[in-house]
Amino acid sequence: MEKYNSEQEYLAELEKRGIMPDGFKTSVVPLSFMPEERQVDKALPMNLSMIMLEEATEVFAAVFTRNKCPGAPVVIGRSMLDNPRVRGVVINNKIANVCTSTGIEDAKSVIKAAAEACGAEPSEIFPSSTGIIGWKIPVKDMNKKIPELVSSLKGGSALSLAKGIMTTDSFPKLRSANVKGGRIVAVAKGAGMIEPNMATMLSYIMTDIKIKRDELGAVLKRVVEKTYNCISVDSDQSTSDTVIAMSSCSKEGVSVGEFEQALLKVCSELSEDIIRNAEGTGHVIKVSVKGADDFYTAREIGKALINSPLVTTAIFGNDPNVGRLLSSVGDYMGNKGLELDKNSMSIKLGPETVFKDGAFILDEDKEIRLSKYLKERVLDSEHKTYPAHNLTVDIEICISREKKGEAVVTGSDLSYGYVRENADYRS
Amino acid sequence: MEKYNSEQEYLAELEKRGIMPDGFKTSVVPLSFMPEERQVDKALPMNLSMIMLEEATEVFAAVFTRNKCPGAPVVIGRSMLDNPRVRGVVINNKIANVCTSTGIEDAKSVIKAAAEACGAEPSEIFPSSTGIIGWKIPVKDMNKKIPELVSSLKGGSALSLAKGIMTTDSFPKLRSANVKGGRIVAVAKGAGMIEPNMATMLSYIMTDIKIKRDELGAVLKRVVEKTYNCISVDSDQSTSDTVIAMSSCSKEGVSVGEFEQALLKVCSELSEDIIRNAEGTGHVIKVSVKGADDFYTAREIGKALINSPLVTTAIFGNDPNVGRLLSSVGDYMGNKGLELDKNSMSIKLGPETVFKDGAFILDEDKEIRLSKYLKERVLDSEHKTYPAHNLTVDIEICISREKKGEAVVTGSDLSYGYVRENADYRS
Repeated sequence: MEKYNSEQEYLAELEKRGIMPDGFKTSVVPLSFMPEERQVDKALPMNLSMIMLEEATEVFAAVFTRNKCPGAPVVIGRSMLDNPRVRGVVINNKIANVCTSTGIEDAKSVIKAAAEACGAEPSEIFPSSTGIIGWKIPVKDMNKKIPELVSSLKGGSALSLAKGIMTTDSFPKLRSANVKGGRIVAVAKGAGMIEPNMATMLSYIMTDIKIKRDELGAVLKRVVEKTYNCISVDSDQSTSDTVIAMSSCSKEGVSVGEFEQALLKVCSELSEDIIRNAEGTGHVIKVSVKGADDFYTAREIGKALINSPLVTTAIFGNDPNVGRLLSSVGDYMGNKGLELDKNSMSIKLGPETVFKDGAFILDEDKEIRLSKYLKERVLDSEHKTYPAHNLTVDIEICISREKKGEAVVTGSDLSYGYVRENADYRS
Repeated sequence: MEKYNSEQEYLAELEKRGIMPDGFKTSVVPLSFMPEERQVDKALPMNLSMIMLEEATEVFAAVFTRNKCPGAPVVIGRSMLDNPRVRGVVINNKIANVCTSTGIEDAKSVIKAAAEACGAEPSEIFPSSTGIIGWKIPVKDMNKKIPELVSSLKGGSALSLAKGIMTTDSFPKLRSANVKGGRIVAVAKGAGMIEPNMATMLSYIMTDIKIKRDELGAVLKRVVEKTYNCISVDSDQSTSDTVIAMSSCSKEGVSVGEFEQALLKVCSELSEDIIRNAEGTGHVIKVSVKGADDFYTAREIGKALINSPLVTTAIFGNDPNVGRLLSSVGDYMGNKGLELDKNSMSIKLGPETVFKDGAFILDEDKEIRLSKYLKERVLDSEHKTYPAHNLTVDIEICISREKKGEAVVTGSDLSYGYVRENADYRS
């Protein structure tokens, strides 16, 4: 079991884990903006962060939210996907720059200032914002800080970047992998509002592994489907979700298959870190759905469970109210007009089979054992700045014995903490 | 504003409101079942309740959950819809009789005992159960109580029935209407797990207004679509949702249109009562969606908002975080692959327009006014046994200026109370 005994231990591990691939630098500077009356979560600093390649690269790819009210950075980022090359990303937290009257020009002003300071073209810099929807970003203050941001760019670890992009995240999230001398380092931000299609989730992937641009794009899409799009905290996908991958291409000799395996591992771990760090998470829940028509149906069923407040509040309360698992599956199938053969279906919670051959198999002893199972998996709320452990509550739903579609969906329980965090987000 | 100053005042009003139509009797007896170790919410008694017509009627209709794992009473109830006539319903709370190995025979045993005691056919009695999914109902104890249940049948008010069917409901829900000497009285049970298609929501409608059986069926379907299927607390539709309507047909002279209007009013009020009484509700939220393709799309958009934990936790916290309204709409449209013209869209919260012509219109004063608006609508949690007031938080979403589809969806915020109630439901 992966376990850290103190914040120091966790950060020391991340510092090492975050050593960047060849060709990348990062920097973070604090912003002083935010009038007293509109302070959002005063304890959390507003930062400007930057990822910069020493030289522009033509090997990059990005995946954005499907939300129909995307932020200005998403609109601009999408338009950049056919550009010949990019140099980096400028990121701010606390304000998402979504649907304001000057959103696009505000974002363009910031990337123009950043490009000028780096000797790059504005078309080579991705803007990226996360935070409150509906407010304007403080363009003047941001542009004033750009020279400092550029002059403090440095190599070494991406840990300060992972910290700089946090909003309500309680600990920084950073994962890496080595493949035959090449390296992948990725950071992510995301706490509430996390669903598939990547809700207020930002992730930046840096690598020095040589790969073709179209291959990187295809690999990134497949990996995102199986990782970031298989997690859900509150079923909302945000206006700003973004995953950007860039390669400096300085390390040869890694096959596309090897690269994809390594990236899948990095993004899987980061996805679980995001859940483990979700607002008020008490348990990390892993739903494995088997025997569905296909991967997508299996994933949808898993998400129906993970997004059911009745399932997730019961797990928060260590209550093995397994009837709610069946009800959620039945609800989903009914809403979709799909058939369900209950006699072919089975449900496991942890090591115990609770439903089989069309009926529940429950007794008082089993319920006591299941309650104990849930209690052992509680994330100790005292470990606020690093993950307490990596245990998960495992639910297995087999829809039918014949079909082969399967998916694993990860989510969190619904706790007082979630409500507190989201009710008081801006106060 | 409808307002009750004490539980006594509320119950006195319900006692009067509940005077039953001609030809109906009801009764409630407590059940002693439930071993100490499996007690569900010890404060709440397990009851057996009965609605009985003095004479069997051929005029009845019912609407059931679309959940694909329905309880045994729903399976049996559906099979009764073509029966020549019915006499009544036997209802238990606390255990829902869903997917146990003996569910159907258990429910049949209870309705057989009830039919024998009433001099009716088993095919004339609807079974109805609500509560924990996966446990068996205590058939022996229930059957032992049937003679007492039948001998205590009486006319007068349906208030004791409204109380008897409660589970986590904090107050009884009962509405009625008079139409030209005829009368409709309806009770409902439902607190958590309430969504459209009627999630653990039981409602029994009694009337003496003469109407044809097929007309009653058609009216009930239309009314349920616009009332019970337009509310949502936690997006789950249960395995047991049931609406049953029966008429003794003793009062003539009311047109089908007049009957439908009256039933619509009764079920609308009852729907709002259910929301106002939902587990831990702090605000009742009414989302009016206009300018959608059709009624169903408008209703889905409204539900996307009402079911977004980010929207409902913000409202719980009196935080006018209106960006989340836009994000929810964008999320829904993106997931469905629908186009959205933001320039044609507008959003109002209470009296204030917050989004128009493609951009948010926000300033600090407006946010302070909106926060005040939300605070004024909080349901005082000290009023646990009767509704504090009937104020709602009104959200208006106009999707486009050209289209005509509209719907009103009602739901509740997401509060600590909701989590507490659902996490601790069985402890």
